This record gives sequence, C-alpha cells and structure tokens, in this order.
Amino acid sequence: MNRKVIIFTVGKMIEVEGLLMLLPALTGFLYHESQAFVYLLVATVLFVLGRVISLKKPKKTKIFSREGFATVALCWLILSLFGALSFYFTKEIPSYIDAFFEIVSGFTTTGSSILTNIEGLSHASLFWRSFSHWIGGMGILVFVVAILPESQGTTLHILQAEMPGPIVGKLVSKVKVTARILYYIYAFLTVVEIIFLLFGGMPLFDSMCNAFGTAGTGGFAIKNSSIAFYNNAYVDSVITIFMAIFGINFNLIYFIAIGKLRAAFKSEELRWYLMIILVAALGITFNIMNMYSSILTAFRYAIFQVASIITTTGYVTADYGQWPLFSQIIIVFLMFIGACAGSTGGGIKVSRIIIYIKSALNELKHLIHPHSVTTVKFEDQHVSKNTVNNIHTYLILYLMILCSSLLIISLQNIDFTSAFSAVVTCLNNVGPGLNIVGPVGNFSSLSDISKLVLCFDMLAGRLEIFPILLLFSRKLWVK
Amino acid sequence: MNRKVIIFTVGKMIEVEGLLMLLPALTGFLYHESQAFVYLLVATVLFVLGRVISLKKPKKTKIFSREGFATVALCWLILSLFGALSFYFTKEIPSYIDAFFEIVSGFTTTGSSILTNIEGLSHASLFWRSFSHWIGGMGILVFVVAILPESQGTTLHILQAEMPGPIVGKLVSKVKVTARILYYIYAFLTVVEIIFLLFGGMPLFDSMCNAFGTAGTGGFAIKNSSIAFYNNAYVDSVITIFMAIFGINFNLIYFIAIGKLRAAFKSEELRWYLMIILVAALGITFNIMNMYSSILTAFRYAIFQVASIITTTGYVTADYGQWPLFSQIIIVFLMFIGACAGSTGGGIKVSRIIIYIKSALNELKHLIHPHSVTTVKFEDQHVSKNTVNNIHTYLILYLMILCSSLLIISLQNIDFTSAFSAVVTCLNNVGPGLNIVGPVGNFSSLSDISKLVLCFDMLAGRLEIFPILLLFSRKLWVK
Repeated sequence: MNRKVIIFTVGKMIEVEGLLMLLPALTGFLYHESQAFVYLLVATVLFVLGRVISLKKPKKTKIFSREGFATVALCWLILSLFGALSFYFTKEIPSYIDAFFEIVSGFTTTGSSILTNIEGLSHASLFWRSFSHWIGGMGILVFVVAILPESQGTTLHILQAEMPGPIVGKLVSKVKVTARILYYIYAFLTVVEIIFLLFGGMPLFDSMCNAFGTAGTGGFAIKNSSIAFYNNAYVDSVITIFMAIFGINFNLIYFIAIGKLRAAFKSEELRWYLMIILVAALGITFNIMNMYSSILTAFRYAIFQVASIITTTGYVTADYGQWPLFSQIIIVFLMFIGACAGSTGGGIKVSRIIIYIKSALNELKHLIHPHSVTTVKFEDQHVSKNTVNNIHTYLILYLMILCSSLLIISLQNIDFTSAFSAVVTCLNNVGPGLNIVGPVGNFSSLSDISKLVLCFDMLAGRLEIFPILLLFSRKLWVK
Repeated sequence: MNRKVIIFTVGKMIEVEGLLMLLPALTGFLYHESQAFVYLLVATVLFVLGRVISLKKPKKTKIFSREGFATVALCWLILSLFGALSFYFTKEIPSYIDAFFEIVSGFTTTGSSILTNIEGLSHASLFWRSFSHWIGGMGILVFVVAILPESQGTTLHILQAEMPGPIVGKLVSKVKVTARILYYIYAFLTVVEIIFLLFGGMPLFDSMCNAFGTAGTGGFAIKNSSIAFYNNAYVDSVITIFMAIFGINFNLIYFIAIGKLRAAFKSEELRWYLMIILVAALGITFNIMNMYSSILTAFRYAIFQVASIITTTGYVTADYGQWPLFSQIIIVFLMFIGACAGSTGGGIKVSRIIIYIKSALNELKHLIHPHSVTTVKFEDQHVSKNTVNNIHTYLILYLMILCSSLLIISLQNIDFTSAFSAVVTCLNNVGPGLNIVGPVGNFSSLSDISKLVLCFDMLAGRLEIFPILLLFSRKLWVK
C-alpha cells in the first residue's frame, strides 16, 4: 500500500479546496457580507494545511486500484468535513451535522437540504452551496489531476474510482489531458448555460448558481420554491435542455465537439437515455394533463421534472407530490435509473440498466437452450464476464445499503413513503423525495442519526459504492 | 419440443384436480350445504376432461428442461383457471376475476384475499380455499409424479421447475420416490399440527383448515380476523412453531426423520434462517413492548408475525399496521427474504440471500486484490459460476417484475405504500401488505387489471419466475 501517495493527494486536494473557497469569499465581499471573512479564514487555513501535508513529494508514484479507492474515499470524506466548516462558523447552519449534511449533499450533487429558509442565507453561502455541486459534479480529484503540474504516475485508478459508470474510457492516452478536456467541456457548457439564463432576464448571481446546480446535476436552488420561483417557460426550457445535456456521457459530448457526430449518436446508452426521457415525459403528461390549463403546460412541467429526476439534478417546478400515483412511481423509477455513465449524474446509470436487462434475457435463452453460449453485447462490444459480475455485485451492494439505511432511518417513526424515498433520493443523489422530504419539504426534521446515514448514502451513491465500502475493509489497509 | 408429454401431464393434472375437489364436495355434504353439488359437478367434469386429454399415452417420455418449464407453467395456469370455477358457480364470489384471484392466491400459497366477509362462505368453499394452500404448497405436479403408477421417463425437470430454491437435490435416486417421501413428510406434519390444534380446543374443521394454511405456508384463515380470532396463546404457539417448521428445507426434515440430526443442523441455510427469525422477533419485541401489557405478550405477537411473514404464510394475530415504522420495515424485509429453499414457503429464499451476500463480498475482495481467485462457498460446497449467474439473473428479473407490476397497479390512484406492499406481498406469496391491503384490509377494492397483474406476480413468485416468464417466450415453443 503506497500510503505516501495517498497522503500527498489528500494534501493537494485540501489545498485546492482552500483555493476554491476563495470564490464564495469574494462573492461575500462583493455583497459586503460579514460572512466573507469566515470564508476567507477557512480558505486560508485549508490552503496552508494542504500545503504542509503535501510538502513531501512521494518518490514512488505508482499506485494500484486499491490506492485509487482509498484516495478517493478519503478525499471525499475530508473534502466534506472541511467544506462544512464555513456554514458552521458563519452560524448560518448552527448544527455541525446539519452543515455536514448540506455540504455532502452539495459535493455529491444530491441537492437534499436541511434548510427551511434557503433565501435567508448570505450570498457567500448560497454561492458555496451551489458551487459545491459544480466541484463535485465532475469530481474534485479529476480537477486535482487536471491542474497538478508534475507527472503523477498512474492516476488512472483515481479517475476510475471517482468517475461514474461501469466502464471508464480515456478520451486520449494521457490521463491528465483527459481530465483537462473534461473540465474544458464542463466549464464551457456551464458558461453557455449562464449566458442563456441571463438572456431570459435572470440576474447574474442566480444564473451562475442555477447553472452550477444544473452542470453538476445537483439541484440546490437559491430560492425556497426552487426553479418554480422564476415561473418562466423560457427558463424552464433552458434548464430542461441543459439538465438533459449534463446527463450525457462526456465522452460523447467530446465526440460531438470534435465533429464525430455519428459516433456519438450511434451510442446505445444515449438512445436509451433519450427514449426513457421521452416516454416518461409523455406518460406523465397524459397522467397529469387534467391538472393543468393545457396539455402543453402539462408537458412543460412533466419534461422538466423527468429531466431533473433522471439526471438526478432535483430542481423542481411543480410539486409532483400532488401528482397521481402513476406519475410519482415513474419519478421514483427515474431516480433509480439515473443518468448516463461518465456524466455528472447519479443513479444506477442507464448503461448498467441495459446490461442488467440484456444479461437477464441472455440467461433466459440459456435456460431454454442450455448448450447455447452467448455473451452480452453493449455498444457493439462484448461485455466481459468480469464486468457483468462487477455490475451484478454493484446491484447487490446497492440493495444492501438501501435496506440497511432504511432500517436505521425507520428507528425514527415517520411514514414508510417518506423513509423509503429519503433513502432512494440520497443514494441516487437526486435531492427531493416524497411526503415529508418531498419537493416542498426538506430534511430538517430527520434525526441526527438519520442524517448521518443519508450522508453515507450520498457518498456511496456518488462514488458508486465500492470506494466508500472498501474504506471500512481491513483488507484495504493491511500491507 | 415434446408436446405430447406436456399435454398428457396437463391431462393427468386436471384429472387429479377433479379428484381433489371431491373433498370440499364431501365437506359440503357433511354440512348439508347446497354448494356441495356445485363442487361435485365441477369435480366430475374436471375428472372426465382430464381423463379424455390424457387418454393417449406419449411414446417418447424423455423431456428436457424447457418441457419442464412449459409443463409447470401451463399446469399452474390451468389448475387456477379451473379451480376458480366452483367459487364462481356457487355465486359465493360473483366475479370470475375475483374468484381467479382468490384461487391463484390459494394455490400459490399467498393468502391475499378479495373477500370482505370470509365467515360468510360455505364450509365447502372455506375448505377448498384452505385446501388449495395444501395442494399448492408442496406442488400439484410433485403430487402427480408421486401418484402416477407408470414410469414417466425423466420427470426430474418438472420437479426442478416446480420446487422452490436455486439448487434442487433429490432425496433418493428415483424421482417418484423422492416425490412420495416429500408428500409423506408433508402429510404427517400436517396431521400432527391438526392434533395439536385439537388439543387446544379448536374445532376439527378449524384445525384442519388452519393446518392446511400453515403447511402450505399460505395464510388463508377461515375467520375475518385470521388467527387473532382464537385469541389463545397456546394456539399462537403451536402455529408459530409449525409455520417455522414448514419454512425449513424438506430435505433437512427428511434427514431429521431418518436420524441424521447432525447433518441437518450443520446446514448453513437453516442456521441463518433461525437466526433471522430470532433477531427479527427480538427487534420487533423491543420496538413494540410499550404497546402491550408485558414484554412476553409483545414477544408472543412479534414471534408469531415474524414466523408468519418470513415463511410467507401471512396469518395475523396483531395488526402490524399499527406498529412503529421500524417493525413494519422488518416485516417488509422478511417478505423479501422468505423461507428456506425446498420448503413450501415463498420469497427470494434464505439460500439465495446468503449467496448474494457472499458473492458480493467475494467481488469486493477481488477489487482489492485483482489477481486473487476465489469462489463462493455455500453449505460447504463451491457454488458454480452458472448457479451464481442464475441467481443474479433471478434478482434482476425479480426486480423487473416488481417494477412493471408497480407501474401498472399505480394506474389506479391509491397510496404508494399500499401499491408497493401489494406487489411485494403477492410476488413473495405472503398475503397481507400495508395500508389498504394491510392485515385488517383486503384486496377487494383493487381494479380488475391490478388483480390480474397480482395474479401474474403470485404465479411468478410461486414458480420462481423462470417458468412463467418463459411461457411468453416464442423460443420456448418453436421447435
């Protein structure tokens, strides 16, 4: 186990976190808020601390997958522990556990909130909340890898552990260049969305925060009523489209950017993803059309919510808690399905769902013709037995975490739907659930134990279970 | 595809169903009920029909697994379609779909009912309802195999498709003898339970019906308030113990019967099964003890409900819908877990759960040490890759059926908890769910479409998915 590399990377990450926290500090100063000093102080301390920890460069930089898992899990835990400090020290979130929940929800791009009055926060904190989505969306370590000047040996394992999806492809042979390209695309698309939102008359601060929430598929809004506050069909449309875009595999966006359109649209996952969005939106539209003035209005709210939930963003323009059960069930299913692999979205991911279905149908064929040998094909390639096994394991661990969490949360005597949806929405990094944690509710009334369990779920969901579970394995650390 | 064997077996099954229906006819005559004539008539027609269909004996009796699947799926469908007739013709259940639901629930040993006043039924129908559990519990085809005088070639595939569990072991080398031994044990234990219940002062008719419901792990009661009606700690204890026994793999009961006690108690599945019952019962006891006069009373209700739900019987002595969420979540988990493989109980089965967990932990180890090769061990044997793959597929198909059913049922605008628990309880052959389908509710208010979907779920659950799904596969029938 190469501990020195792990410590060095953690140090670098803390340093970067300090640097990134200068942005909310700056925002605070622009708005003449006293909280700005807190952000500046925490930023400085983190920067210095990170520097000190990463002073000693490791000689051996070669790492294996287990160092990758350990680094990523540790980094995300520490990132959140430190990221919560400013909420706590500004006294805007007086309980540290609440502050921790809020920032874990931010970094993991969940968007579940313990705040009962979001609009009461300072601009500095509102910015930090939304910006945490942007940092967490593409991954803090992808960012660290992208900006580190020196060669870091094999950093692919870190990327693999942090990037969502069962199969991670490098865009170009160099990991660092891949990380940079990803962040270029990410930043570019975010800026484009900000411009579109400004065009619709949204103030700059709102546009930036909402774009961060979209890009990271996070869903923290800066208004109590989320995006419904703007009550603007143009804004809804822009955010709907950008949510859908940020739920697409960034490799495909890269293909589109370099003009390989055909390669992009040949993608099986992309076609399924778009089809699911369309079918779900139409299904909900017909189910809720009696509740709205026209079928077009119903479609506007339906497609927004579908894009918001499947990408696990969690923005809200309509209280889907009032929709009929059929629509609510579709919403819950979309929470599980999630976005495409390699996007900033959470959930099980469309590609895994496809492979699950294909491998099951394959096995059914095998039952009828026991001597036939067939393998699963995905994106025109044979899926190795190892990969299939890995995603089967993923499902089992996923269900185990879901059940254990539900059991612990049920110690607090709330209703079944609230408890179930709270776990589902956090484990899939969506944001809102149903009933008391629904689109017009929040997570403030949950007990501290429930909140900590949900923090675990959010981290497990964002890092796709393995790194965060392995953190508790003695085998990871021994030797 | 050997269609002739399939048709012949279906015919024999109908003949046997006709014979079995003479028992409720006899019951009716004993109680001087006019419904007895209906039962006699239906029984006669079925017997003759079955005779005619199975007149021509097939020359080639060799069959393969796909004939096994087809036979079992077809037999169960036809068994239910014909079994519903007497309810319908006696006008005791005026809707045929309701009658079909009730008898599917009977044969699949689910125990969910559309009746709002069970006590209004004739003794003939009450007997047929409870007796259907007994027939379905061990399997109608196992019975047919056991009583068929002539050699039937390879009937193992039929047993494999009908018996619950991922790995089916023959007790002795001859399939027919195995089937007979299973029914001997089954009948013997049922009689013992009847005697125990009579001892407690329960009338003979009640003792028989309740014993049928216990033995088949079905759960149809003959009283509106289920077993709570007797309000008797002795009765509760007897039924608790027998439910737990019928949830054990019959192979182990056979070992115990022939004196191989050590072999039986060495079983991993049995130890897990007993441990889950104990832990769940204690957890619920502590959770509900404030609701009852003493901790002992709380334990009595807790252990009864735990045994009832994990074995997927579904008898009720307490309205667990009033218990705190923690207890309700445990109840729901037990519904999923189910009993041991090779028992009359439903659910996913303890052995599958063990293999899921072991294979997942195995894969986690593999992630840390990618070059290590380890296989899953269960009951001191290596589980083949094929079996692991098969039970992974099972989980995926199981979840797919659960989700599709939930979606269709949600077209009827009921609450989420009711819809979810209705599907879970039917797919796992338990019986009662939560809220409107809870322990004091019933399935009468559901729409016909919902009822048919739940019938499909009950059959899929009882036959462990594969046969019933393959019925819809063109590949099963083509050559």
